[in-house]
Amino acid sequence: MAQDNKKQVEQITDMEVDFAQWYTDVCTKAELIDYTSVKGMFIYRPYGYAIWENIQHELDRRFKATGHTNVAMPMLIPESLLQKEKDHVEGFAPECAWVTMGGSEKLEERLCVRPTSETVFCEHWSHIVHSWRDLPLLYNQWCSVLRWEKTSRPFLRHREFLWQEGHTLHATAQEAMEEAEQMLEIYADVCENVLAMPVTKGFKTDKEKFAGAERTYAIECMMHDKKALQAGTSHYFGDGFAKAFGIAYADKENKLTTPHETSWGVSTRTIGGIIMTHGDNRGLVLPPRVAPIQIIIIPVAQHKQGVLEANQAVMDRLIAAGFRVKMDDSDNSPGWKFAQYEMKGVPLRLELGPKDMEKNQCVLVRRDSGEKVFVSLDGIEDTVRKMLDDIHDGLYAKALKNLQDNTFPAYSLEEAKTIQAEKGGFIKTMWCGELECELKMKEEAGMSSRCIPFAQEQLSDVCAICGKPAKKMIYWGVAY
Amino acid sequence: MAQDNKKQVEQITDMEVDFAQWYTDVCTKAELIDYTSVKGMFIYRPYGYAIWENIQHELDRRFKATGHTNVAMPMLIPESLLQKEKDHVEGFAPECAWVTMGGSEKLEERLCVRPTSETVFCEHWSHIVHSWRDLPLLYNQWCSVLRWEKTSRPFLRHREFLWQEGHTLHATAQEAMEEAEQMLEIYADVCENVLAMPVTKGFKTDKEKFAGAERTYAIECMMHDKKALQAGTSHYFGDGFAKAFGIAYADKENKLTTPHETSWGVSTRTIGGIIMTHGDNRGLVLPPRVAPIQIIIIPVAQHKQGVLEANQAVMDRLIAAGFRVKMDDSDNSPGWKFAQYEMKGVPLRLELGPKDMEKNQCVLVRRDSGEKVFVSLDGIEDTVRKMLDDIHDGLYAKALKNLQDNTFPAYSLEEAKTIQAEKGGFIKTMWCGELECELKMKEEAGMSSRCIPFAQEQLSDVCAICGKPAKKMIYWGVAY
Repeated sequence: MAQDNKKQVEQITDMEVDFAQWYTDVCTKAELIDYTSVKGMFIYRPYGYAIWENIQHELDRRFKATGHTNVAMPMLIPESLLQKEKDHVEGFAPECAWVTMGGSEKLEERLCVRPTSETVFCEHWSHIVHSWRDLPLLYNQWCSVLRWEKTSRPFLRHREFLWQEGHTLHATAQEAMEEAEQMLEIYADVCENVLAMPVTKGFKTDKEKFAGAERTYAIECMMHDKKALQAGTSHYFGDGFAKAFGIAYADKENKLTTPHETSWGVSTRTIGGIIMTHGDNRGLVLPPRVAPIQIIIIPVAQHKQGVLEANQAVMDRLIAAGFRVKMDDSDNSPGWKFAQYEMKGVPLRLELGPKDMEKNQCVLVRRDSGEKVFVSLDGIEDTVRKMLDDIHDGLYAKALKNLQDNTFPAYSLEEAKTIQAEKGGFIKTMWCGELECELKMKEEAGMSSRCIPFAQEQLSDVCAICGKPAKKMIYWGVAY
Repeated sequence: MAQDNKKQVEQITDMEVDFAQWYTDVCTKAELIDYTSVKGMFIYRPYGYAIWENIQHELDRRFKATGHTNVAMPMLIPESLLQKEKDHVEGFAPECAWVTMGGSEKLEERLCVRPTSETVFCEHWSHIVHSWRDLPLLYNQWCSVLRWEKTSRPFLRHREFLWQEGHTLHATAQEAMEEAEQMLEIYADVCENVLAMPVTKGFKTDKEKFAGAERTYAIECMMHDKKALQAGTSHYFGDGFAKAFGIAYADKENKLTTPHETSWGVSTRTIGGIIMTHGDNRGLVLPPRVAPIQIIIIPVAQHKQGVLEANQAVMDRLIAAGFRVKMDDSDNSPGWKFAQYEMKGVPLRLELGPKDMEKNQCVLVRRDSGEKVFVSLDGIEDTVRKMLDDIHDGLYAKALKNLQDNTFPAYSLEEAKTIQAEKGGFIKTMWCGELECELKMKEEAGMSSRCIPFAQEQLSDVCAICGKPAKKMIYWGVAY
């Protein structure tokens, strides 16, 4: 083989040496992402985008099964519209990108590229909502949004990122609150049962709430380096937006009434979460249910008679059984192929050569554990299905152990500081509910509040920071 | 029933009285679209967006079956990047919307909201293409683009519209040209076999080519009012973009070579095409293969015992058979329901009441013809499937007849003018190939060139406009 045809799998930094560099290496060398000439704007390459498509599919069918429909709203928001809800504009205006010219003409009013679309949905609803019969409205859109951040990082912080934003309008506060909770449960379901990422469900503090929300629900995940990643949020708005935008409906007694609203979102950050939850020093480790390639087939001694045909036959069977399969019969060396698909996190490798053919068997190698087994080709579909489920369960169990082993109670600010400095992870304390204590934890221990978990524990009666009577147990952590 | 609960189906303008107003009425009253406070920016409402999702699904699976993968590129393009290909920037700069501020800071270089993404794909490819092994690259993205047009119209001309843009890079000109032709065939397939819209396939003239393309292929459709709608285009770029962006690869002999490029797109304009091809004075008529609701079930005498259950049972069977079905058991009157779902273009209405239950039958009413038949509930799935196929075939045949009946040969400019004034439609003439004659046809007969059809006819030897030797037969028309 000519020198120029020999491919090398590029090296990545060890995660123990430099976790941040390891992460960037994985993002670029597994060909998930490319940088562009605009800072903070990334290209989602085919392999990265395919992961997102699989996440989209899983979320979208759950949205539709719960009665939601997709829509598309304009990407540009007039400044005056953005300003209608006070808290909202304060939260988002500093990071808006502004369109000021259309063709060669200066616009009379500048238009913001949407950082989120509450205002646009509200304007539309003010046109179409008249009667109780028009409610609820259960909408979602798949799109990208822009936030002019100072720093950026693949998947975790883009100036433009892909997401879905659900927006719903309800007759009553109760119904809206149930919607916000339902969507958080759907997010938790997808995180745990599709992405193999265990979540902590809870409320955000007032400080960490979404701009304009009465209540923000969130799911928090722990990454391999013990930092926190918020993987999805769901907001209950009360009737604040509806009032600001003049949305009202005639109820069954013909009384004009203000409806209640929610919004909820999950973004391509979750891909960052997958990488940092499951990855290792050989690269990506993808949870089987979103892996673009679930099984990579590598023919052994592929030049020998009948080998390619036998491999093709197995591939056809697995594709027919609904798996995402690829065969690599290129002239790259087996060693290169093994390393390449390990880097890309393909959950299972299937090897099949002349000796295997004689024995009606093949080799399966798990990406997560490296375990190698010889299995019969009879019933290969069931064998593979079971092994992919095992890989999912194994990834989940490992991530759950990481979460449990690195969640620590603390009973004073000093103790919290010490644990964070020595071990990292989530630190749970009782809390009085005051902003002052939250700011103090941030300032002195470098941790923000992650959430007030639904699953409360009574660690003590007093706030770990100020010693005054405690209202809630809260999670703290260093977050992405 | 209280007065305020009575719903009226809103009237629409007769298409013979005012086709443009009929069109707008259908778009708004069938709840496809809403206007916003920004001129030319529309909201795709659930029913309109669901049609697009079905079109997306049909296209996307054909793209993937032919080896294409989806990606996502940034929506903002630096001005300097847009300027790299001369013809391209001249074509698009006049209709770009410009981002000039990020947060409170003025940007050093202004950024255009993408009107199309050739430049961004090229920049990325210049990073990742090195060897012949890297080719071909077969990419597509689903997104929205912005073009700052002066006039606007639902679906037909938006300042922001949804589309897909495919971009591919090939080792040879031959391969790129075949790709452009293949994608045109896929578009034609979806138009004809999914949307029931017959197409004329051909090339665009130099004047009507895409900015920067060597060759533009298009499919042209005839609307009910005999005007033309370009439903999809595919471009062969040669190596112009690749040279402008410094994309090169080492071929098998290790020689640095410039690759060849294509792009191709279909947008939500096609929904406008569906409306204007199939609609009638009762509203939308949707081709069954993209109708969000294929069968609307209206229970008759639904308060009587067992009626709702019987209707639900039929619905369950049809859903299990893979149809998109809705049941309306609201307390609106049957008359309202009939008119409402006719307005929305639902292909089949299924009515089932106590008398039908006794006879193990139901009523099926076709939206396209109004034909009403009693059919057995035994094998209802097959009956419905066949009827939906018949509706598709009927819609296609009707549209084809409209196209054939309104395509006229002309042998002089005068004749073309007369036909256009008296009958409208497509006018086919021989053409010398000169821009001057094309401009003359536009100026004097108000028609632009639609395409140089693949299916050529030798109408005469001379150009109908100037009388000089003819090179090709060309189609003219008034276009949306």
